[in-house]
Amino acid sequence: MRRFEYVKDFEQPDVLLPNTWIVVRIDGRGFHKLSDHYAFVKPNDRRALDLMNAAAVEVMKDLPDLCIAYGVSDEYRKLVTTIVSTFTAYYIHLWSIYFPSTPLQPPNLPSFDGRAVIYPSSRILRDYMSWRQVDCHINNLYNTTFWTMVLQGGMSNTDAEQELKGTVSADKNEILFKRFGINYNNEEEIYKKGSVLYRQYELQDPKEAPASQEEDSLPEAKQSRSQQDKLKKLRRKAQVVVDHIDIIKDDFWERRPWILSGKPGKLPVQG
Amino acid sequence: MRRFEYVKDFEQPDVLLPNTWIVVRIDGRGFHKLSDHYAFVKPNDRRALDLMNAAAVEVMKDLPDLCIAYGVSDEYRKLVTTIVSTFTAYYIHLWSIYFPSTPLQPPNLPSFDGRAVIYPSSRILRDYMSWRQVDCHINNLYNTTFWTMVLQGGMSNTDAEQELKGTVSADKNEILFKRFGINYNNEEEIYKKGSVLYRQYELQDPKEAPASQEEDSLPEAKQSRSQQDKLKKLRRKAQVVVDHIDIIKDDFWERRPWILSGKPGKLPVQG
Amino acid sequence: MRRFEYVKDFEQPDVLLPNTWIVVRIDGRGFHKLSDHYAFVKPNDRRALDLMNAAAVEVMKDLPDLCIAYGVSDEYRKLVTTIVSTFTAYYIHLWSIYFPSTPLQPPNLPSFDGRAVIYPSSRILRDYMSWRQVDCHINNLYNTTFWTMVLQGGMSNTDAEQELKGTVSADKNEILFKRFGINYNNEEEIYKKGSVLYRQYELQDPKEAPASQEEDSLPEAKQSRSQQDKLKKLRRKAQVVVDHIDIIKDDFWERRPWILSGKPGKLPVQG
Amino acid sequence: MRRFEYVKDFEQPDVLLPNTWIVVRIDGRGFHKLSDHYAFVKPNDRRALDLMNAAAVEVMKDLPDLCIAYGVSDEYRKLVTTIVSTFTAYYIHLWSIYFPSTPLQPPNLPSFDGRAVIYPSSRILRDYMSWRQVDCHINNLYNTTFWTMVLQGGMSNTDAEQELKGTVSADKNEILFKRFGINYNNEEEIYKKGSVLYRQYELQDPKEAPASQEEDSLPEAKQSRSQQDKLKKLRRKAQVVVDHIDIIKDDFWERRPWILSGKPGKLPVQG
Repeated sequence: MRRFEYVKDFEQPDVLLPNTWIVVRIDGRGFHKLSDHYAFVKPNDRRALDLMNAAAVEVMKDLPDLCIAYGVSDEYRKLVTTIVSTFTAYYIHLWSIYFPSTPLQPPNLPSFDGRAVIYPSSRILRDYMSWRQVDCHINNLYNTTFWTMVLQGGMSNTDAEQELKGTVSADKNEILFKRFGINYNNEEEIYKKGSVLYRQYELQDPKEAPASQEEDSLPEAKQSRSQQDKLKKLRRKAQVVVDHIDIIKDDFWERRPWILSGKPGKLPVQG
Repeated sequence: MRRFEYVKDFEQPDVLLPNTWIVVRIDGRGFHKLSDHYAFVKPNDRRALDLMNAAAVEVMKDLPDLCIAYGVSDEYRKLVTTIVSTFTAYYIHLWSIYFPSTPLQPPNLPSFDGRAVIYPSSRILRDYMSWRQVDCHINNLYNTTFWTMVLQGGMSNTDAEQELKGTVSADKNEILFKRFGINYNNEEEIYKKGSVLYRQYELQDPKEAPASQEEDSLPEAKQSRSQQDKLKKLRRKAQVVVDHIDIIKDDFWERRPWILSGKPGKLPVQG
Repeated sequence: MRRFEYVKDFEQPDVLLPNTWIVVRIDGRGFHKLSDHYAFVKPNDRRALDLMNAAAVEVMKDLPDLCIAYGVSDEYRKLVTTIVSTFTAYYIHLWSIYFPSTPLQPPNLPSFDGRAVIYPSSRILRDYMSWRQVDCHINNLYNTTFWTMVLQGGMSNTDAEQELKGTVSADKNEILFKRFGINYNNEEEIYKKGSVLYRQYELQDPKEAPASQEEDSLPEAKQSRSQQDKLKKLRRKAQVVVDHIDIIKDDFWERRPWILSGKPGKLPVQG
Repeated sequence: MRRFEYVKDFEQPDVLLPNTWIVVRIDGRGFHKLSDHYAFVKPNDRRALDLMNAAAVEVMKDLPDLCIAYGVSDEYRKLVTTIVSTFTAYYIHLWSIYFPSTPLQPPNLPSFDGRAVIYPSSRILRDYMSWRQVDCHINNLYNTTFWTMVLQGGMSNTDAEQELKGTVSADKNEILFKRFGINYNNEEEIYKKGSVLYRQYELQDPKEAPASQEEDSLPEAKQSRSQQDKLKKLRRKAQVVVDHIDIIKDDFWERRPWILSGKPGKLPVQG
């Protein structure tokens, strides 16, 4: 045994930079083909989105350290693979609830890859989230217009793509409204804003909210183990909600200070 | 949008060192608790092992670049998370075949983490594999003896642990044989040797096998894209087999030169 | 040529995490032996410290992006090796000024190694600096007491070490004062506080100083190239000073806000 | 003190992949400007090359683990910065020997940066060295032709550059020979081949040399500490030589097997 043990020396450490925001991004592998195989509705399949969110809710319930993909861990690779694996497990397990008449058929099983990016301040984390939401809006407006032109307007994919080349948002809004009578503003929020998941506590009055963001910069490492366990338990009690809401403006963050401070708020009174 | 785009600068590259052997190790998360919850048989649950192997077979079928967890990729994190996610997907999907009367019950869903280690030569890769197989043997002898003492001998966990402290292999073999009439050599190979998965081609005569290992050190990057695609297709045609066999001695590797050379052999004639 | 070019693929990127504080620590290699060889005075050799500071001043003059080892760069390794090499170059070149009668004798040439550590917020950077200054004080009190016992008290190294084992600061102060009439508070500040180097601008009134540290968290990447060049030029005009002063308390940082904000202040009026 | 100690957690490990070849590349910083400032001769300044080689010889003498920049170390950053710093120290110290009438004038001090690249096999290492030597030849032929056209032919830099655009080696050889009577083959070897430094032992007969390269793949980690110390001492006894010789063909390596095997040969009998 001894003579093989040197192989351990090849393991590289992959320690995480403490006190930073870790964003773990999960991407479906070959989902273009998969969405064809299982006949996802274009441009948005509500069941598929709901399944994604349901899997994400379970990941957040399983890993109480996450809050909007906010995590603290001592090892990079384990963090990322754990999240991706847990997400995959629930995605497969919950599939039949969202697609009751479309059973999974190997080898067409959904799977995912993931990667982590580190952001050193909450300002930059918010800019990252804003970037994603702007991106979501731009893509959804394009896809909604494109598929309406194809499915309702009877255009070919190529023609629709050609006509949309170089258009700005106002142009697409006009196409939707003038040709198809669709007011893009009335589209469902989940398509326009995406989904944001977080633990739900009592909303705070933005005026009363502590202006200072300084607290989130307090070294996490200074917290005792028992204090961390206590916070973990409090987080487990909170409900994970799926919201479709503006996360670019300050309001979202000021009313939910626990997301960036990491300090659980008051549990809302049940109605 | 533009003002948020700087967030892309925080993405760190994670390029793989070319021309090395990449071992991706997958570990079950909290499987001690999970094996209790679903009442896995001690010390070895054949269904659980077969399920692991079945999921691994599907991963190898899905990712033809793998051969005994041998892979070539340009990105670390994607490689690892893809393998872990695919493994998880099949594990969950195939569960009901191996545990037909034990349905999965959330939140007790199996999930996995993974990590990659790089080995710069096939000699070191083989030493790594040897290390794992020696480890498997040592652990299984311990577990078999321990659980026999507990389940058949009626000892408490603590007493069995205490008695086994400091014993060597010969001692454990003797306990098994003298007290319980068990000849460890007769235990099933899957428990004693573990499982090795590889693509099956016609076995070669070790004497004829090219002695030189030099070919596996030929820079993979020198292969053209079309050549790589051709190899990929050939690999997809081969059957992935699960074997329980000595991988420490030269014989295993000399008869299956394709594993280390990366060059598919002849497909075996179907009986 | 072409057939060798694939070797480029082995170069690994080593990109820096933007918007963080980078501390580059430089250590003398084998300076224990070197300080013996060139007969440095114990416990502190003023010439050797002045030489270190002089070399550091030149590094800061050469690399205007540095401020208290604060830097922005796109590549880790180049940053660290450049600083270490520049430091070494000046250290060797300036040696004869500080040790006019002790010429360097190869192979006893001073050399250094270096490493970079990243801190994600200015609060943590300040904690790091505080840690170094507390460390400096503790070590200097020990060394001063030890060498006084040896050089003035005639004790052997072993006896002095033995007696000091387990003593606290108050004990060492007492030994110095009672046995040798030395009041540690009167020791030179350079020995007790270490040296801090920064660019000198007009000191600010702490009360007027902007309380917010938020500005240093503004993404550097958002600055235009020409803006960055302008800042660089302003920094080059400032004098680099060597100070021996408390950097743990707020006062130091509040009076010199340019250190953490990265924004050059007003050049002081020359007397 | 304790409250600042958490800052240690930010230090990232940077462990080296064992059993690989580490190439540390050292580049002069701003040497274009520096070579102007100190009026280096074009296209090749023999004194400057000799100074580089002299500094490199001292680095190899100082660090016996190096052999053609071959090193074994447990920490990346320290390895690289140590080599760069030692190189800089000797470069500055030896300057006055090679440029006796051109004293160094701060702030125009030479300094260097460095980076490490890892190669997993000696075949790839040799390809890397071949690539460098081919590169050296191509650049030197270009520079020799260019500067001959400018300095002897009286052409402007732009005209020479323009005429050389798109030429191949044969064209440049012809320009040199037909216009200036220069036979490129007669140029000095140091310019055409570059410099390779290694420890000198008795050359071996290529036919007797062990064909197997396998030994260099033996895990270094398996050597005992005392064995490593013994090898280190033997290496210190050998002379470091500067050679200008073909390192692309097998001959160089087969006659000097100690370079890739790491096993010191016999010291040559002194004449």
